Amino acid sequence: MIQGYVAAHSDRVAIGPKPRVVVRAEKKRHGRVGLVIGNGSGHEPIAMGWIGRGLLDSNAVGEVFAAPPPDLIVDGIRAAEFGAGTILLISSHAGDILNSEVAIEDARDLGIDVRPILMYDDISSAPKGQEEKRRGAPGTAFVYKIVGAAAEEGRDIEGLILLGERVRDRTRTLGVAVAPGISPLSGEPMFELSSDEMFIGMGVHGEPGIGRRKLGQAHEVVGEIMTQIMEDLPFGHGDEVIPFINGSGGTTLMELLIIYGEVARFLDERKIQAFKPLVGEMVTTQEAGGFSISLLKTDDEMNQLWTAPCSAPYFHL
Amino acid sequence: MIQGYVAAHSDRVAIGPKPRVVVRAEKKRHGRVGLVIGNGSGHEPIAMGWIGRGLLDSNAVGEVFAAPPPDLIVDGIRAAEFGAGTILLISSHAGDILNSEVAIEDARDLGIDVRPILMYDDISSAPKGQEEKRRGAPGTAFVYKIVGAAAEEGRDIEGLILLGERVRDRTRTLGVAVAPGISPLSGEPMFELSSDEMFIGMGVHGEPGIGRRKLGQAHEVVGEIMTQIMEDLPFGHGDEVIPFINGSGGTTLMELLIIYGEVARFLDERKIQAFKPLVGEMVTTQEAGGFSISLLKTDDEMNQLWTAPCSAPYFHL
Repeated sequence: MIQGYVAAHSDRVAIGPKPRVVVRAEKKRHGRVGLVIGNGSGHEPIAMGWIGRGLLDSNAVGEVFAAPPPDLIVDGIRAAEFGAGTILLISSHAGDILNSEVAIEDARDLGIDVRPILMYDDISSAPKGQEEKRRGAPGTAFVYKIVGAAAEEGRDIEGLILLGERVRDRTRTLGVAVAPGISPLSGEPMFELSSDEMFIGMGVHGEPGIGRRKLGQAHEVVGEIMTQIMEDLPFGHGDEVIPFINGSGGTTLMELLIIYGEVARFLDERKIQAFKPLVGEMVTTQEAGGFSISLLKTDDEMNQLWTAPCSAPYFHL
Repeated sequence: MIQGYVAAHSDRVAIGPKPRVVVRAEKKRHGRVGLVIGNGSGHEPIAMGWIGRGLLDSNAVGEVFAAPPPDLIVDGIRAAEFGAGTILLISSHAGDILNSEVAIEDARDLGIDVRPILMYDDISSAPKGQEEKRRGAPGTAFVYKIVGAAAEEGRDIEGLILLGERVRDRTRTLGVAVAPGISPLSGEPMFELSSDEMFIGMGVHGEPGIGRRKLGQAHEVVGEIMTQIMEDLPFGHGDEVIPFINGSGGTTLMELLIIYGEVARFLDERKIQAFKPLVGEMVTTQEAGGFSISLLKTDDEMNQLWTAPCSAPYFHL
């Protein structure tokens, strides 16, 4: 997969310095903060597909659905070290946190100034008030893109970390699953779900969420999800938000656009302004059926960074 | 779906002048040739998603898997009439040809200079020597993008038609299906295929192709497809080609990148140069499992037009 990716996009990405680390093809830019993430594969295009100008510098590509080991994350960090510090993005899952902590210690022993941003946005995985116990979910896309654009501008590491945490703290996500993906490891479906049911709040590896319910019409399901997201931050009248509708892998663009139509109507009715939405398959679990809705309570600075130019092969607004 | 699409991408696309015609959001540019296609929906992002600067001007969006009726195609043609003639792209399928022929007559009666480009590229649907009997398949993407970029440059209609036909005549496509999509009309799988089989050459609506065979490893299947494509044009040593790996809807990006890795290796071994490939889900049949490989025997002019800027929401190299 990695070889096919760099062959297809050799104008923008390359392998190196290790076979499982993907980096930008362009020459390093000294004096800029580097951005890196390590993650299990099987969720493409994230994160490998988001390497490019205005986004990530390097990605440590783990085995399917498994956090990369600490030494691989260290390789990723070293590939994003340009003399102004490196930020390690961590989407909150137990294995990723554990391996990242070890990697950060090891990288610091090598003299690299690396700092983490822990990302969590899934409101189904822990109650309001315990946000830091929640899982990372597709809404982490806001942190990647906005911090990536700001790093490209040459901002310093302290400012970038504050910005990333501010974006995280203003983001909420909730998803539904309607059909399992097939594990590339076992060849078997990753969970069981009857064909007339959906699962609300399931994580990208089939982690439990809020529970099962009967399939419903798009406007009902969107209304239910949006209501929970709105109450959690809360979002309200007069806010400006960036909506992100993510497909889980086997959800058609037709379906995602129908869902976005309902989201737009929901926001309109509440006098909430939508800015430049993202609608597509960005964080997947193989051919799983389902989708998530993420909202960021945005502002002028975030809007500018969200829409700043970006050359990553698979990140497109 | 259409309402969700224009809501999500209102900076680039709009509805009008009729509810099922999608057009660019920007003001009309007089004196330029317009490009339009009508097609059944259910194959998103094509063609609605490819409206934008450097690509299509309008799309007449038919019912699911059904060619749009002639009057709807006429509405699409009228929306792409800027005073220098209009090209109606037609992906060769019986219903699309029939309805387009009627629409062209009706549009001409209204005084519009509209000319067709019939597109066919699927080598499984008729033998070599009978190319004009073949179906339109994902390789039509080359015609759309290259003619779209040339129209944006302000070229005249005769030149654009010759260019489009030249691109078509240098393109070949062959695909495989491994799992059916679910029809949004019936809720049922669109064909039957045992889980250890694949179907070579199936059309986007389940039309028959070359036949069934056992599933194979990526390098075997790619080798078989590439060999047939190479012999058909033929492509050979010293050629430069643009490869396009299209996912049918439920094929993961991981799989498409593995396939592209094999395609790149196949071309390398034969000293065929690959230029700026396209790898992604562009022409789908709901959540069908499968992919196609298209090759265009390119040249410097086509390369420049292929990579020319394009603002369509769902066309990205």
